[in-house]
Amino acid sequence: MQVSGGDLQRLRQLNSLGSIRALREASGPLTVSELAARTGLSRNSVIDVITGLHECGWIAEVEPAPGGMGRPAKRYRFRADAGHVLGIDIGVHKVLAVITDLAGRTVSSGRVAVDPHAARPERLEAVWRAVDAALVASGLSGTDLWGVAVGSIGVVNREGTVTRVESLPDWPGVDLAGHLGQRLSCPITVENDSKLAALAEQRLGVAAGVSDLVYLHAGRRSGAALILGGRLHHGFGGATGEVGLMEMTGWRTMATDLENSPAARDAPPEDAARVVFTAARAGDPAALAAVDAYAHHLALGTAAMVLTLDPELVVLGGGFSRSADVLLPALRRALEPHCLRVPDIRPSTLGEECAALGAACLALTHVDEHFFSPDGSISRPSAPRRLV
Amino acid sequence: MQVSGGDLQRLRQLNSLGSIRALREASGPLTVSELAARTGLSRNSVIDVITGLHECGWIAEVEPAPGGMGRPAKRYRFRADAGHVLGIDIGVHKVLAVITDLAGRTVSSGRVAVDPHAARPERLEAVWRAVDAALVASGLSGTDLWGVAVGSIGVVNREGTVTRVESLPDWPGVDLAGHLGQRLSCPITVENDSKLAALAEQRLGVAAGVSDLVYLHAGRRSGAALILGGRLHHGFGGATGEVGLMEMTGWRTMATDLENSPAARDAPPEDAARVVFTAARAGDPAALAAVDAYAHHLALGTAAMVLTLDPELVVLGGGFSRSADVLLPALRRALEPHCLRVPDIRPSTLGEECAALGAACLALTHVDEHFFSPDGSISRPSAPRRLV
Repeated sequence: MQVSGGDLQRLRQLNSLGSIRALREASGPLTVSELAARTGLSRNSVIDVITGLHECGWIAEVEPAPGGMGRPAKRYRFRADAGHVLGIDIGVHKVLAVITDLAGRTVSSGRVAVDPHAARPERLEAVWRAVDAALVASGLSGTDLWGVAVGSIGVVNREGTVTRVESLPDWPGVDLAGHLGQRLSCPITVENDSKLAALAEQRLGVAAGVSDLVYLHAGRRSGAALILGGRLHHGFGGATGEVGLMEMTGWRTMATDLENSPAARDAPPEDAARVVFTAARAGDPAALAAVDAYAHHLALGTAAMVLTLDPELVVLGGGFSRSADVLLPALRRALEPHCLRVPDIRPSTLGEECAALGAACLALTHVDEHFFSPDGSISRPSAPRRLV
Repeated sequence: MQVSGGDLQRLRQLNSLGSIRALREASGPLTVSELAARTGLSRNSVIDVITGLHECGWIAEVEPAPGGMGRPAKRYRFRADAGHVLGIDIGVHKVLAVITDLAGRTVSSGRVAVDPHAARPERLEAVWRAVDAALVASGLSGTDLWGVAVGSIGVVNREGTVTRVESLPDWPGVDLAGHLGQRLSCPITVENDSKLAALAEQRLGVAAGVSDLVYLHAGRRSGAALILGGRLHHGFGGATGEVGLMEMTGWRTMATDLENSPAARDAPPEDAARVVFTAARAGDPAALAAVDAYAHHLALGTAAMVLTLDPELVVLGGGFSRSADVLLPALRRALEPHCLRVPDIRPSTLGEECAALGAACLALTHVDEHFFSPDGSISRPSAPRRLV
């Protein structure tokens, strides 16, 4: 067989890629023999690849495990601290910025409360304060960031523009990538917040390893997002999970089932649902009826998605998921009459940080594509620069 | 760089795979230079790979193009006739068997009409007659087949069992793979017929190259199927596209909007829709009202799927798609009030053969995985045998 220099380089690239993947996915450091077994490469090829990756700075040698007979074998780990990404969640009431390492572990975060009626410039200013807080806490500067993703409420199209949002009148059309690009030079992505929450639950949370799921955002506003075939389903124009727009689901008004219940005892709207869930937990009949009415409507939109997609799992997220002990059984009962098979339903475990963590996960996906695509060549670890 | 024998074999495998893909996807035969340009391989590697693939029987040399100066360069094509697959569609009224080559081109077919009230044994007997007819017409025998896929009405789970079907009471639980396996030794797959129709439209029909689409089966019975990320979306239990089961869509009874219309003029139920569409085409007000009523309900279920998935395209298939000139504009109008963006809607172009062709496409997918997976090794062309 003829082997040209270009072919050899391609082979080395594929071998490096396989090795770096194996080291990233391993739960601990690996020896040359372990790496050879996981990649199917020869020991000589592994040694060759490891030398290259170590020189580059992608992997580190780890102290040998103590004990054992003879000379202990060298062990290697992926350097998750070689780079960092920033995930931002811009909500109605807050901005949250999270910095993670290349393994998705949170290094630092910054949170800024925002008036729900704040105008666009004020909200954008809060974004910088949250980002600065996270950077200060991490000891990093903006130029150290490898990637940024931002979650926003509303429909976000493929170009990253917010095209439609009900709760913030002056938000549609906002150029978040342009705004952040004034001070951050790495690639910047914008995505809908519920989509990012779904991604976070699938990468880091309750849906780890599940390839098809529906994520429900149940709160004062309602939404949904889909993970299909292990990937975030963006849709042609970004408008996925919008089944709640159909009148017949009642999603647009269903939060009032809770807020207008007598069991809310005149609590202010932002607190009413919590009061009702608490009363329902104690067995209050009016509260239980309100939860059932809410669950009935939530189930109509959920059933439409479940019957369309037959997912393995439904994740219940959003503010109301804190009362999953009360809401989840009611939702399951309300789904029964509609579904051929009610899927497993689990409450979100990542809480309020869900969308920001999902943004970090999305930024990491792009870092992966930049450094570790089968078509590219593996360069030294360094912050990628945005194409302007 | 150290290169072991195993690594070299892996490289050769990847090079062969890349070359065979390029030859299959090319619109005509390719020269060594053209293949080198398309695969990124060196000329020497291409010559090496081509020699191997030619010896195996996967590719054929083509007569040089006439004319031109000097000695004409040799050209090669993928041998699509090296193997054949069988696609079967078992419907309420007919069984259709189609044999295609490895490029999905139809070589022969056999069709048997079946009484809609026929019991299971009679319907299974019709399957053999359709298969035998297709084999006779092709000049092949059952042992020449590389793969078989069967489409059935009803929900088909991952194990290939029909779990739920409304129109054939004795059909659930039928073991189609076991039945066909009595005489066919190649791998056999079972799938829902609408899913196969969607696959056919995406591989061979009106949705070529579209990665996200909703396929509507609009006929006396209604159904839907999804292609997401370029692949058939099977779902956890095979029950995707079942949004019509929700009462509020009206899908279960919507065909009566046409059949019970005064514009049907007492035509028998199986002919009523055609009569109404014809009258609507001529401007008959009662017929137009009936089409609008039907389109209203079809749009409710379609909107639920479109709002969930935001697909690029909706394909209108099933018997009523023959009247797409009348039905499609009504459907588009009925979708407007529900959707953020009404996607492109196109009528099916593959007609009655759609599900059988989709079955052949699915069988070809499995042939691909068998012979051309990046982890395997390319063996000589020969009919794969089922694992029993």
